[in-house]
Amino acid sequence: MSAIHIALLGYGTVGKGVYKTIQTHQEKLKNIFRKDVKVVAILVKNIEKHHAPDPDILLTDDFNKIVKLEKLDVVIDAIFGKNPSFTYLQQAMNKGCHVITANKEMFAYHGTQLKQLAKEQGVTLGFEATVAGGIPIIQTLRQLLHVNTIQKVQGILNGTSNFILTKMREELYPFETALKLAQEKGYAEADPTNDVEGYDAFYKAVILSELAFGEIPNWEDSIRQGIQSITPEQIELFSAFGYRFKHVASMEKTAKGILCTVKPVLVNETHPFYQIEGVQNAVSIDGDIVGNISLQGPGAGMFPTASAIIEDLVYINKHSFSPIFLDEQNELSVKAFKTYWAIGGDVAVENIPSHIPIINRINPNFLIVEASWEEICSIQLPNVYLYQVLGRVLPEKTLVRS
Amino acid sequence: MSAIHIALLGYGTVGKGVYKTIQTHQEKLKNIFRKDVKVVAILVKNIEKHHAPDPDILLTDDFNKIVKLEKLDVVIDAIFGKNPSFTYLQQAMNKGCHVITANKEMFAYHGTQLKQLAKEQGVTLGFEATVAGGIPIIQTLRQLLHVNTIQKVQGILNGTSNFILTKMREELYPFETALKLAQEKGYAEADPTNDVEGYDAFYKAVILSELAFGEIPNWEDSIRQGIQSITPEQIELFSAFGYRFKHVASMEKTAKGILCTVKPVLVNETHPFYQIEGVQNAVSIDGDIVGNISLQGPGAGMFPTASAIIEDLVYINKHSFSPIFLDEQNELSVKAFKTYWAIGGDVAVENIPSHIPIINRINPNFLIVEASWEEICSIQLPNVYLYQVLGRVLPEKTLVRS
Repeated sequence: MSAIHIALLGYGTVGKGVYKTIQTHQEKLKNIFRKDVKVVAILVKNIEKHHAPDPDILLTDDFNKIVKLEKLDVVIDAIFGKNPSFTYLQQAMNKGCHVITANKEMFAYHGTQLKQLAKEQGVTLGFEATVAGGIPIIQTLRQLLHVNTIQKVQGILNGTSNFILTKMREELYPFETALKLAQEKGYAEADPTNDVEGYDAFYKAVILSELAFGEIPNWEDSIRQGIQSITPEQIELFSAFGYRFKHVASMEKTAKGILCTVKPVLVNETHPFYQIEGVQNAVSIDGDIVGNISLQGPGAGMFPTASAIIEDLVYINKHSFSPIFLDEQNELSVKAFKTYWAIGGDVAVENIPSHIPIINRINPNFLIVEASWEEICSIQLPNVYLYQVLGRVLPEKTLVRS
Repeated sequence: MSAIHIALLGYGTVGKGVYKTIQTHQEKLKNIFRKDVKVVAILVKNIEKHHAPDPDILLTDDFNKIVKLEKLDVVIDAIFGKNPSFTYLQQAMNKGCHVITANKEMFAYHGTQLKQLAKEQGVTLGFEATVAGGIPIIQTLRQLLHVNTIQKVQGILNGTSNFILTKMREELYPFETALKLAQEKGYAEADPTNDVEGYDAFYKAVILSELAFGEIPNWEDSIRQGIQSITPEQIELFSAFGYRFKHVASMEKTAKGILCTVKPVLVNETHPFYQIEGVQNAVSIDGDIVGNISLQGPGAGMFPTASAIIEDLVYINKHSFSPIFLDEQNELSVKAFKTYWAIGGDVAVENIPSHIPIINRINPNFLIVEASWEEICSIQLPNVYLYQVLGRVLPEKTLVRS
């Protein structure tokens, strides 16, 4: 069986996620491509710090060795910063390789040039992973654009700043404390400027603007405002009235071109961004025919980003399978999935079997418990209302069980 | 220039929306297809009740006249019920036509057969419009499936029942009153069984299950529970503790096959379905690699559904344009778009120009006003905090301006 030969630039979180996903999904990928999918080379900055995950893989700090490989079909860019990424991808395309990138900063600056070069070379350029991690926003925008004229795009595009704002509200932390927590959790860099001052969100906005409106925002006229000046007092005041701070990137077409802003805004519960918490991302699109569509999901992370990159890989080979009838059987492990349930009516705590944890006691007639469907079915109670509960339920720590 | 010849089955809300969208988007469609897109025939049940929107269009109550047309490329099904829709689409495919359907009941029962026939005939079958109106859920699932194994799909798939639940909570209406309002607004039929007892949502769940898991749920083992038994008292009690009732369809793979349930559940604000209100729809997908992705948007209506149908039409012709580089320029009319703003700090009501409405006075130091960006820029105030507000803001009716 012939193979698709892939070089991976960068072997950090994203690079490792891509490698692992390709390894664990060999069968699925083989079904799609009718070929083996092989990582043949990995580029790293410091060769001392890494081991090749397989002895057949060329691990190198020299891109020239990669671009000279005899068999190379796809180059996946999982490194940071404008350069050398841009140069590498140009070289790869000139050699006739397809290219997939997760590098938003580079793509915000050089996306137009790379798209042009891809056209000239007749290769495919994938960039789903540059914006909002696992959320298929690039593909969705492309699809909506077939019919719709896009009027506006808004997004929570930076998980780190959203995490900080969430912690500031939930814990009433000052900005610095929430930032430190984000750094401890690995969400924020030692230098958090890119995230908290909105540069990262702005790069993503540039990429979305070019796709949605066919042009990039005027960088000089754009407004980019960070979240550092938001105080716990402001957060507390607005929370009391049902408003939350969100760091929102907004793009719309005006007479002067694309107006792009990245700034803190207040959101109430009628808006899809209200319950986007922690490192989640979300994008809201207004199209002239379809109206408003929102998407939300994991904005970053090893596997969500890997998922976006592999989607692009599939796209490259899209003619080798029929996308209309994808009827592969999924093989799922069956779990006795636990979830929350509200039990109401004439129910006393004593009636709940002791192996089922009572999470909340809403009032004498309503309890929230955590149980699988089978466990719930085993509770035989008369006059009982039973509703499944969706969402995270925080246990009452004071709840004592007799 | 050659043309794509379309027959429209049904000329109700959806059919009219498709016709209007094709008419108003001739240029856009021509750019995509490099052909004119022409509706050549419309099938109606009662020919007395309708007029052809154009004298060149064959308006008929006899499908035989349509299927015998010499030039016919695509048949769009915008009628209700299992039959005669199924028979018509089979005839159309046997003639070599591509087929697009918005008919969920028919597709839930006969989707597998139609997919098989489409394969045999080498024609394309589009069904994006059968589930969740304008939300591109079919396409998104297909895309995620390339890499991900889908573990679970949940959705608010019926706008009517969600509208009823929203009104019951907001107005504390009993079920019957909220239903009557839905009927007055045209969201519910005279016989609301399909919507409020979950049949409509179940049909959509069947369609999503086949796509996500490669098999349909066991109809006998599935649980389908309506919303009629929910009382305003229950709603009030749970609201007080932050829970809302939502009518949720849920599909997951178990040892016994696909478990499908449609039933009322409780949702709190940590879940993406919490703020899905009125006739909105939402779908949440758990994939093994990507994690959780949610989509929300208009679940029905003339233009959202038309948008989904035209997406399918574009898909049929997908080889005639490059989906990777869709860089058409959108031409947008520029509006002085009004939005809400929170103004805070040392600001008194007198400082706000009288042409800017004050919507809410949160406390002596914070106001919410409605204004365009230009108007906001015109307010020159020292020591002012200014944040844009996203979401619907209800005006305080008692607010009197001095």
